[in-house]
Amino acid sequence: MASKILPVIMSGGSGTRLWPLSTPQAPKQFHALATSNTMIQETALRLSGDVFSLPVVICGTGHFDLVNAQLTRIARSPQLVVLEPFGRNTAAVAAIAALSGQAIDPEALVLLVPADHVITKPEAFAEAILKAADTARDRIVTFGIRPTHPETGFGYIQHGAELSEGIFEIQAFLEKPNLATATEYVMGGHHDWNAGIFLFSPHVMLEELNTYAPEVLEESRKAYQAGARDGVRLILDEGHFAKVPSTSVDYAVMEKTRRSAVIPCDIGWADVGGFAELWRLGAKDEAGNHAQGTSILIEAENCLIQNHDGPPVAVVGMKDVMVISTPSGVLVCPIDRAQDVKKAAEAAKALAAL
Amino acid sequence: MASKILPVIMSGGSGTRLWPLSTPQAPKQFHALATSNTMIQETALRLSGDVFSLPVVICGTGHFDLVNAQLTRIARSPQLVVLEPFGRNTAAVAAIAALSGQAIDPEALVLLVPADHVITKPEAFAEAILKAADTARDRIVTFGIRPTHPETGFGYIQHGAELSEGIFEIQAFLEKPNLATATEYVMGGHHDWNAGIFLFSPHVMLEELNTYAPEVLEESRKAYQAGARDGVRLILDEGHFAKVPSTSVDYAVMEKTRRSAVIPCDIGWADVGGFAELWRLGAKDEAGNHAQGTSILIEAENCLIQNHDGPPVAVVGMKDVMVISTPSGVLVCPIDRAQDVKKAAEAAKALAAL
Repeated sequence: MASKILPVIMSGGSGTRLWPLSTPQAPKQFHALATSNTMIQETALRLSGDVFSLPVVICGTGHFDLVNAQLTRIARSPQLVVLEPFGRNTAAVAAIAALSGQAIDPEALVLLVPADHVITKPEAFAEAILKAADTARDRIVTFGIRPTHPETGFGYIQHGAELSEGIFEIQAFLEKPNLATATEYVMGGHHDWNAGIFLFSPHVMLEELNTYAPEVLEESRKAYQAGARDGVRLILDEGHFAKVPSTSVDYAVMEKTRRSAVIPCDIGWADVGGFAELWRLGAKDEAGNHAQGTSILIEAENCLIQNHDGPPVAVVGMKDVMVISTPSGVLVCPIDRAQDVKKAAEAAKALAAL
Repeated sequence: MASKILPVIMSGGSGTRLWPLSTPQAPKQFHALATSNTMIQETALRLSGDVFSLPVVICGTGHFDLVNAQLTRIARSPQLVVLEPFGRNTAAVAAIAALSGQAIDPEALVLLVPADHVITKPEAFAEAILKAADTARDRIVTFGIRPTHPETGFGYIQHGAELSEGIFEIQAFLEKPNLATATEYVMGGHHDWNAGIFLFSPHVMLEELNTYAPEVLEESRKAYQAGARDGVRLILDEGHFAKVPSTSVDYAVMEKTRRSAVIPCDIGWADVGGFAELWRLGAKDEAGNHAQGTSILIEAENCLIQNHDGPPVAVVGMKDVMVISTPSGVLVCPIDRAQDVKKAAEAAKALAAL
């Protein structure tokens, strides 16, 4: 392979489901959740072999310093950081990724990855990437995660005919199913979780955007070209970027194009969407507690404790409860009510605005 | 009455049952628990009428700055702060109080009060003090709290014959009873809670100490006389103070002397010994939550939230739980397990010593 693969890390979004860990100022990808590295550091580190060039990052304007500091600390200084003045969904991100790739090295494949996913088998992931490289010369390859259980919180990709060993045509993109349907998917063996990871050649993505989402491409290109460059920083032009239709790359391109493929793989993938996943994924003591940071557990059972830079967190006689302590807030909530955390996040935001 | 009454505030002790609010550096009397003033401020404020002179405080050597700053802020600057190099129980405190009173104004009655009690009816308390003043010329008067329920956590005082209207001889001091006995006490009407508040003339207390606890008096006097004076500060001599037998004023004097009296009163008294009492005493919202400091309550019920100088505390879907957040720690514990808080305090102390 002539050119190295260009990792483009999507670091947008500022989920409220992990408040007070994740805040608009420092969303979850900038925190050490599963390991001692932050999630964006883990993302960059697993794409740091010989076949990868230094990453491009696409993030919000307020996060440049965090991105730069965290990646520089692990010797993966970004070669370009594209700053979005506001979020415009993933079709715009795919366009920006393709335009960046074309500018940096039109021959290089672009690997577009979210900054906030857990992948516990990085070697398997690297292997899948290399295996998909040939196909990615003329198709947009997406990575399908072999489901481990009938998850109803993710979209699924149904695969069709085999294109080459282990790589398939895409039959359909499917919305989040109910439990019965999810169970059928898992039993059938033709459906994988849609992880939102893509490998493509810049010109292929640009052609498909041009065909299926021309307005997204046109305004993204103008925002990119009229953007203000300052060192590795490129601030997208706000006026043009505001005109980019807000739509997902799945909807705008992947569900329509025939130049797509899926590579089902088992890479220990997880989307830490909320605290329940964090507890499920975390290493636990014999009483089922997952604790990070200084903590005191007395007759605590199946608890999740996250203490980030705070004084000791003592949990006495509690069961199935999460206690999150950060400089932004303290949260106490039953783990099975993790979906209500966003209500607390909204209230905290309202308080901060007072 | 010729002389003003001299309030002597006992500010020793550093209970672990209110960790992380109460710490050895700043025990509970220095915190705002029930009101917006700290407990020692409330104590000084309720003894600030015309009949009281500025207070004397007896406290640990490490607490001078806190005492001085907190009392100065409310215009009750202490006229003397006696610093104990270590605790020697309440008999020594009574001796020091009497010696201080004798030095400042031998004619003035001394009112010896703990710094960390809640009294919600200060007018009734002031009335009881004035009513007891004559008797206190030649007896040590203690304030008996009319019991509101059969509490098993306090000692009781049984009163005997009436000396003057509403003031009685003391029949017996009784240890913490079981529930059946406590119920009998409450029904009988002759027993009151022992609040550890005393009104006496310095020479009477000194005479009774001399009779019943001569060693306590002798070494306390030496520690006082050999103490280092610096402004309002008097640091007790460590060598002599170490020789003072550690015993309570109840045991050393009150249970033996016949020069005692009790004035049963209803002054809204409470000893905030732990978080359960704090929740019971606190003002509550319609869901039974008592919250102090910035908090976010979402479907919380009968919870106690104390946030001292921390980021917002969010409590989602919890019941009967306390969440305490201070710069010293975060504590999460069911309210009915408040007695286990001291275990967390000990663990935190061990952590801090690492």
